Amino acid sequence: MRELSVQPLTRAAFAPFGEVIMLEGAQHYPINQGRTERYHDLARIQVSAGGGRPLLNVFRGLPSHLPVEVRLLERHPLGSQCFVPLHGARMLVVVAPPGELDESALQAFLTTGDQGVNYAPGTWHHPLLALDQGGDFLVVDRGGRSDNCEERELGSPRLIRALPE
Amino acid sequence: MRELSVQPLTRAAFAPFGEVIMLEGAQHYPINQGRTERYHDLARIQVSAGGGRPLLNVFRGLPSHLPVEVRLLERHPLGSQCFVPLHGARMLVVVAPPGELDESALQAFLTTGDQGVNYAPGTWHHPLLALDQGGDFLVVDRGGRSDNCEERELGSPRLIRALPE
Repeated sequence: MRELSVQPLTRAAFAPFGEVIMLEGAQHYPINQGRTERYHDLARIQVSAGGGRPLLNVFRGLPSHLPVEVRLLERHPLGSQCFVPLHGARMLVVVAPPGELDESALQAFLTTGDQGVNYAPGTWHHPLLALDQGGDFLVVDRGGRSDNCEERELGSPRLIRALPE
Repeated sequence: MRELSVQPLTRAAFAPFGEVIMLEGAQHYPINQGRTERYHDLARIQVSAGGGRPLLNVFRGLPSHLPVEVRLLERHPLGSQCFVPLHGARMLVVVAPPGELDESALQAFLTTGDQGVNYAPGTWHHPLLALDQGGDFLVVDRGGRSDNCEERELGSPRLIRALPE
């Protein structure tokens, strides 16, 4: 099985797929008489297509262990979907650009425990791959009628053998 | 200064003010071939009034120490606002029902580090009171034009001296 290499997650590298949710480099300002710092508008939550509404959920993920086989991707054409770790677990983020699935454009990223991701509508992505102890991730996605999940099995599954140093 | 007593936070006690965000008692089901459990639709996110959109933010709060003086409440008439701890910090949640502010109806709750809260539109609430080491809370609230924050100083400030046993 061909290997898929993993990069550290940065805003620039992830820009074609959505946003990295992180405090470093974010717009922020003090509120509450200076007792709270507001890190403002960290992701483009897009859930209103087709009469949709925002859902707040928690995904509790079992831990994934290397090597990880990448056999399937999914996308949500009508809405964005974000994942923010609640207890600092890292994630493997495997994505391909929106549009017809191009397996040659597959990319994999490793989050830090302080990063989340927001998949733009239509971005192909692997279901949650939690590392470390796994655990809970806060997820904001779209609720409403209309089918909003497509899955594709890869013609050439890929193998993640190692994390970036 | 008159004391304000603090209750443990439960769904039933908080119902007049919004929702408690917690996994216990929530609707949930397996996804991702059984590798993830989805705890579904944990809060009524209401942000579309007046052309609003959902904002995803992080509030970094300094820790509050007892005794805590309650001098001011605020409300957001056009949208809900939720707080979910990212590193397990507890909160003091001080609220009064929507409508004209009734200081005699003030209530205070203590969260566990596994609970968040979602204030319904118009619910009077104190700005973030993080306990323990303080820290980061994920906040989903409303972005858009129109003024969406009213503040009121209490005629009779209250003092929180102790947490529930």
